[in-house]
Amino acid sequence: MDDIQNAVDERNWPIDQVGVSDLRHPIVVLDRDNRRQQTVAEVKMSVDLPHQFKGTHMSRFLEVLNEHSGEVTMRTLPRILRAIRGRLGAARAGIELTFPYFLERRAPVTGATGLMDYQCAFVGTAEEDSEDFVLAVRVPVNSLCPCSKAISDYGAHNQRGYVTMHVRTGRSADGKPHFIWIEELVSLAELAASAPVYPLLKRADERHVTMQAYDNPAFVEDVVRNVAVALRADARVDWFLVEAVHQESIHNHSVFARIRWERKGATRG
Amino acid sequence: MDDIQNAVDERNWPIDQVGVSDLRHPIVVLDRDNRRQQTVAEVKMSVDLPHQFKGTHMSRFLEVLNEHSGEVTMRTLPRILRAIRGRLGAARAGIELTFPYFLERRAPVTGATGLMDYQCAFVGTAEEDSEDFVLAVRVPVNSLCPCSKAISDYGAHNQRGYVTMHVRTGRSADGKPHFIWIEELVSLAELAASAPVYPLLKRADERHVTMQAYDNPAFVEDVVRNVAVALRADARVDWFLVEAVHQESIHNHSVFARIRWERKGATRG
Amino acid sequence: MDDIQNAVDERNWPIDQVGVSDLRHPIVVLDRDNRRQQTVAEVKMSVDLPHQFKGTHMSRFLEVLNEHSGEVTMRTLPRILRAIRGRLGAARAGIELTFPYFLERRAPVTGATGLMDYQCAFVGTAEEDSEDFVLAVRVPVNSLCPCSKAISDYGAHNQRGYVTMHVRTGRSADGKPHFIWIEELVSLAELAASAPVYPLLKRADERHVTMQAYDNPAFVEDVVRNVAVALRADARVDWFLVEAVHQESIHNHSVFARIRWERKGATRG
Amino acid sequence: MDDIQNAVDERNWPIDQVGVSDLRHPIVVLDRDNRRQQTVAEVKMSVDLPHQFKGTHMSRFLEVLNEHSGEVTMRTLPRILRAIRGRLGAARAGIELTFPYFLERRAPVTGATGLMDYQCAFVGTAEEDSEDFVLAVRVPVNSLCPCSKAISDYGAHNQRGYVTMHVRTGRSADGKPHFIWIEELVSLAELAASAPVYPLLKRADERHVTMQAYDNPAFVEDVVRNVAVALRADARVDWFLVEAVHQESIHNHSVFARIRWERKGATRG
Repeated sequence: MDDIQNAVDERNWPIDQVGVSDLRHPIVVLDRDNRRQQTVAEVKMSVDLPHQFKGTHMSRFLEVLNEHSGEVTMRTLPRILRAIRGRLGAARAGIELTFPYFLERRAPVTGATGLMDYQCAFVGTAEEDSEDFVLAVRVPVNSLCPCSKAISDYGAHNQRGYVTMHVRTGRSADGKPHFIWIEELVSLAELAASAPVYPLLKRADERHVTMQAYDNPAFVEDVVRNVAVALRADARVDWFLVEAVHQESIHNHSVFARIRWERKGATRG
Repeated sequence: MDDIQNAVDERNWPIDQVGVSDLRHPIVVLDRDNRRQQTVAEVKMSVDLPHQFKGTHMSRFLEVLNEHSGEVTMRTLPRILRAIRGRLGAARAGIELTFPYFLERRAPVTGATGLMDYQCAFVGTAEEDSEDFVLAVRVPVNSLCPCSKAISDYGAHNQRGYVTMHVRTGRSADGKPHFIWIEELVSLAELAASAPVYPLLKRADERHVTMQAYDNPAFVEDVVRNVAVALRADARVDWFLVEAVHQESIHNHSVFARIRWERKGATRG
Repeated sequence: MDDIQNAVDERNWPIDQVGVSDLRHPIVVLDRDNRRQQTVAEVKMSVDLPHQFKGTHMSRFLEVLNEHSGEVTMRTLPRILRAIRGRLGAARAGIELTFPYFLERRAPVTGATGLMDYQCAFVGTAEEDSEDFVLAVRVPVNSLCPCSKAISDYGAHNQRGYVTMHVRTGRSADGKPHFIWIEELVSLAELAASAPVYPLLKRADERHVTMQAYDNPAFVEDVVRNVAVALRADARVDWFLVEAVHQESIHNHSVFARIRWERKGATRG
Repeated sequence: MDDIQNAVDERNWPIDQVGVSDLRHPIVVLDRDNRRQQTVAEVKMSVDLPHQFKGTHMSRFLEVLNEHSGEVTMRTLPRILRAIRGRLGAARAGIELTFPYFLERRAPVTGATGLMDYQCAFVGTAEEDSEDFVLAVRVPVNSLCPCSKAISDYGAHNQRGYVTMHVRTGRSADGKPHFIWIEELVSLAELAASAPVYPLLKRADERHVTMQAYDNPAFVEDVVRNVAVALRADARVDWFLVEAVHQESIHNHSVFARIRWERKGATRG
């Protein structure tokens, strides 16, 4: 049978990314307590394609995924990217895994526990002599409007908001990549907003969270700035993009804010 | 060329519905002030298929849609359904049009105006001697939790909620179908919740809405019951399904409630 | 603190369903080979609410879910529903779990394996003396148009389609509920279409599937009828709703067909 | 009432973008034949926020939108952006409008007409002395796999694909911005794929399109390269990002490819 993909292409256009997307696959991730968590990821995998080749051998992405989904963490991504580059004979490989990650959360007064889901992503690219990794975490929060509180005799509109952080870490003095846990970014986002969001609250907890939010009003601008202050203060972080979206409870639209930052002198890879 | 669709089918299975879906088309709807509003609908059209026919002539649905999208209202649906039945030689025809509908809303204190979008649907089916129409309207509202208010020293969690009403109307003494405006259902849902949601609020308006919500706490159960009371009291209404969903601002999940009701002695068609 | 939810309600409206939705939770399901598969479900849980009660204790749904997600199958649903009814003091309880289910699939020629995802749902309701369970499975398939093949000198448009089956089973002579595996419904849907869809195909497999589809053209009407014939012939099945949707590759819309059927004399619960 | 938004912020963080999102609004766009087309847009509007200000006056975005939605084209975007900058006292303003755009398409043999929807976006940003505009158009196409055709005795798997082009134009010698019509990008994408996708095809048309696709097999790599060749050859184009996604009819995932290009010496604004 012809191998059409290996035919020569004469349009003289290299392709930046070519691969598979909209793919679901079970993966195992590690949590901070070193427990293995099984979840389901949406996967996107790609390589570059030099100008002289007509096509990519798409089935090879699936082979690599099947072989490596046993443990997917920021630590194992380099191995997966190396496997993609090798199997597809590519100079550059990329992968994006988006998945729900679950944490047991304890209600603030009664201590009642339940599981909360956080949408996360691992995004990695690798070339011969460089690697780049971004961890993304989306944290639901409560946001209470400072303006509404200030101008009203009582009450204040509040709503669910989502804080999404994309973070790239640097390397320590001895060359090892710094590592940040999803759990750390969750805490950081919750502190930046009016109150955390919980899976399970009993009445005493609901009272606590209601008043905590009222005591900590925060515009969408405040939330992104609070996150930015905290991430910049973390020496492990070289680059971040943070976005907050509040699903306004007095409107049928959202408000959002975003800050992008890069540490001076930071180098990728 | 063969007409495969007209071939005889021997599996002896009539098909309840067969047709086209995931189709977008511009339509014109009438508002209460008799103005024509242009919007964009997601369309689903179907017929039944007797057991002896192999296939449906799908392109004919598109022909009918092109000819009738100039005005789509509860009043013109019967004409469209008749056209589908005729063109496809079917005993039964169905159509669903889902579309955003815009109303100019005035802020409660300053009177500042803006356009609000309401997701609506016209759902109709017709046979030789019967017709059935359902109007669906989804209204965004503010909901403030009665429990949170009662147990907290100050504040109360509130959030955006959506009230979705499916309503079937009866006929008047002279046999004419009763008619309900989208605008009427919007008002009814807003009265059932803690406060309306607006496109544009200035500071004085925001103060008003904040306190209005605090003065009118409503569980998701309250909202559906309030809507149910109002719809049952409306003699035009023969059947309804109402659902409220509150996007809890202290959780990452929603709460919902639904009531379905039919007037005794109501007959369809 | 006041227990607002237990207050008396005087609007005199019982509520059909009230509960939590849009909730994600990890669950464990059993596959046909008796292996435990961890996946992530979207969960909806509800109870009825008699007219005299103002509100529901929503946090109790979460407590039940946390206690029972260790194994969720059609066999364990009755236990979960009983727990909901008990904990919330309700006459009727309902649950819907929607989740991706993975099967290892073998390519038809080379035998290369990979994991395929099938969107599934368990839907259960229970009252004092009755229980009702529906299993839903959505199967991606290839569909090749018989009309296009018949009228063209070469080629035929084909596309991805989805066959969704909702199935309710009856009870055997000794009163035990019949049981159907997800794997059985997957096979049945694939046989009804032009060709199965695979996670991983090498060139020899792609050749096989291409010709298999060309040899088995099927309208959306054929697919639902083929499934209907097979489900009716299965004595375990008391009721089904089957829908096929083909994402037409020559249009920007889909075509669909659906059949609903109930075995004569079948009784629920 | 306090104007909290105007308070001084001491965290010393300017915000890149702050504004409103998830907003729906009717807009009027011009088509190539100079007819006004009413459609519905999803809108995102933003400004930058200097470090010394605590908050943004979000309601002003809505005021500007209400005043300018009467005609939204690449030509009127600068006026809207100027209005945002003025009303919010901002150095930089941004807007994104995403909307379905409808074209009457004629079937290739019978000439039967129907309306096709194309998802489009206008993306603009402006500062004191610079402006930047990107037009995005998503075109559904038919793609037939060259490998499947080459290795099979008959048939070839094909499927719906989407070609998305983001295009930035330059300025002519006399300083006027170049202008590209949505219609031009639609044609270009259709020529790059195996066959166009139509709203309404009669049997003779279906035969034509089936064979046209079989005669023009195209990998996802071919499609992006074909588009890239055509866009680079258009002297009006300074920058583009093109992505093709094929919803594989033999898999439950998609394949994709993307190329980004910038003309040498091109300057924005």
